[in-house]
Amino acid sequence: MPPGEFALIDRYFRDIGARRDVRVGVGDDGAVLAPPAGQELVAVVDTLVEGVHFPAGSPANSIGHRALAVNLSDIAAMGAAPAWALLALTLPRADERWLEAFAAGFAALARAHDLQLVGGDMTAGPLTVTVQVLGFAPRGEALLRGGARPGDLVCVTGTPGDAACGLALLQGRLRTPAMADEAALEVLRRRFLYPTPRSTAGPRLRGVASACIDISDGLAGDLTKLARASDCGVRVDVTQLPLSAPLIAIAGRAAAEHFALTGGDDYELCFTVPAARAAALAGLACTAIGRVTEGRDITVCRGDSVIEFSHSGFDHFAR
Amino acid sequence: MPPGEFALIDRYFRDIGARRDVRVGVGDDGAVLAPPAGQELVAVVDTLVEGVHFPAGSPANSIGHRALAVNLSDIAAMGAAPAWALLALTLPRADERWLEAFAAGFAALARAHDLQLVGGDMTAGPLTVTVQVLGFAPRGEALLRGGARPGDLVCVTGTPGDAACGLALLQGRLRTPAMADEAALEVLRRRFLYPTPRSTAGPRLRGVASACIDISDGLAGDLTKLARASDCGVRVDVTQLPLSAPLIAIAGRAAAEHFALTGGDDYELCFTVPAARAAALAGLACTAIGRVTEGRDITVCRGDSVIEFSHSGFDHFAR
Repeated sequence: MPPGEFALIDRYFRDIGARRDVRVGVGDDGAVLAPPAGQELVAVVDTLVEGVHFPAGSPANSIGHRALAVNLSDIAAMGAAPAWALLALTLPRADERWLEAFAAGFAALARAHDLQLVGGDMTAGPLTVTVQVLGFAPRGEALLRGGARPGDLVCVTGTPGDAACGLALLQGRLRTPAMADEAALEVLRRRFLYPTPRSTAGPRLRGVASACIDISDGLAGDLTKLARASDCGVRVDVTQLPLSAPLIAIAGRAAAEHFALTGGDDYELCFTVPAARAAALAGLACTAIGRVTEGRDITVCRGDSVIEFSHSGFDHFAR
Repeated sequence: MPPGEFALIDRYFRDIGARRDVRVGVGDDGAVLAPPAGQELVAVVDTLVEGVHFPAGSPANSIGHRALAVNLSDIAAMGAAPAWALLALTLPRADERWLEAFAAGFAALARAHDLQLVGGDMTAGPLTVTVQVLGFAPRGEALLRGGARPGDLVCVTGTPGDAACGLALLQGRLRTPAMADEAALEVLRRRFLYPTPRSTAGPRLRGVASACIDISDGLAGDLTKLARASDCGVRVDVTQLPLSAPLIAIAGRAAAEHFALTGGDDYELCFTVPAARAAALAGLACTAIGRVTEGRDITVCRGDSVIEFSHSGFDHFAR
């Protein structure tokens, strides 16, 4: 008889990640956890569905990494530090090689972010991974979307656009230059398969950023959500976008800008900072790309010229 | 254009349940919550997949109810009180009538259990509902599976077997008596569609029960897990099973016993109590059905005779 659900959980998911303040972890009806005093609890949840959030047949190791990464990114966007995760895994069949690779991808990222897997659920069905992460921030200091004010700088970590280009490469949707640099292609593919949640930057932005969001649905769309929540407009200058060298080399400048503005899957942080606090960003790998404005307009410019722009980010149900 | 993901979340999921200590709820990257002092956090997660955990085409109201109920049942089995939930909903298309009914089923149960929906995620894909509930128990008092000792009474709340019989009725798998009582049929169907998590019994068992588990995969199978975790055996007497009148009327005594032992989907609590503390159960709707024993055997008896019994509960991946 093949191993059942409970044996599989025991084999692959009992001992994942760091050791945290856990009285009861995987294996009971629920996890029993000791929240630190004086902190607020930050709770996030995100689902990845095969064929929607990653191509069918993606490496299991990458799926395990990404399922946790997208949630760590939400925790970072709140300025919080992660502590614990729960994993709800629905998969068509108990393929042990797949499970081993999935768990390894999840575990490596968990250890790197000092997070412990404390519970979960495994069921049969179409491949769907829901992870929920619990983290903490000092009372009243979590970063929200709603605090941007006109005049604030708009900033972004890292180099958005790489992941969307990487996905296009993985799906064979992008015509690549003849003699394309294999190292550049691999950088871009890995930026989709193994995104790096900005877990150091997020907590550093507490008391500095006026608002923050992570980029999952595309910079322009997610920045629009931040502006709506803050009841402000924004003006972004595409000439200031921090485009990576591999992205420009493989996609060309025009497509690179498009990937950066609309691509999604970056898991970078987009945030606003009052100009008076900009010095506090020293040493943080981020770039100012625009300003918060009065009114409600989302304006994309090239230097002084406003350019037409309508794409407002990925939406699962808008057609 | 039909409403998108964010408009749908805003319309159906922004204001569900009670008001709890929530600084930021639905609509940011994460929820910001204030855990009560001196309590341990109890975290649970469970997934329902269409065609696996409920028949395709089940009423959306029931799916919303059950997705929360199965998690409240886990919280109750830990002896904890629920506080907050996150909902990860994957559905094929944005059917607003479906969403309205789903949200209403979820919301009614949330209000009844003083729980607030504080966040979630909505994605396109095969119908899959993952709910995660956070609750609290006084430090060191959560109920676990591992505390049963030889001589303890084995007890169960409610009337197990009803839900499994109700599912068999809904799926047309059960030959019903001619002139079956429609009211009895309806009771059984509703016990599957609208299970009642034992949220009052769970916390009352703190300091009374030596071990506790909720019955999701079948009384015999879940009791086996409790016994394994406690490193004990159990002996259950089928003549003591609290079978409901509708279950016996519709299924007959023999099938009723089988449903009660192996059926699953009951969301009753199965727990053990030292005989010296049995008086503390006064007023709780529960029944003693056996004893914890030395050794590791799971024995099912009819009075003094041991009966053959092998089914060890539902397992998603054992065949």
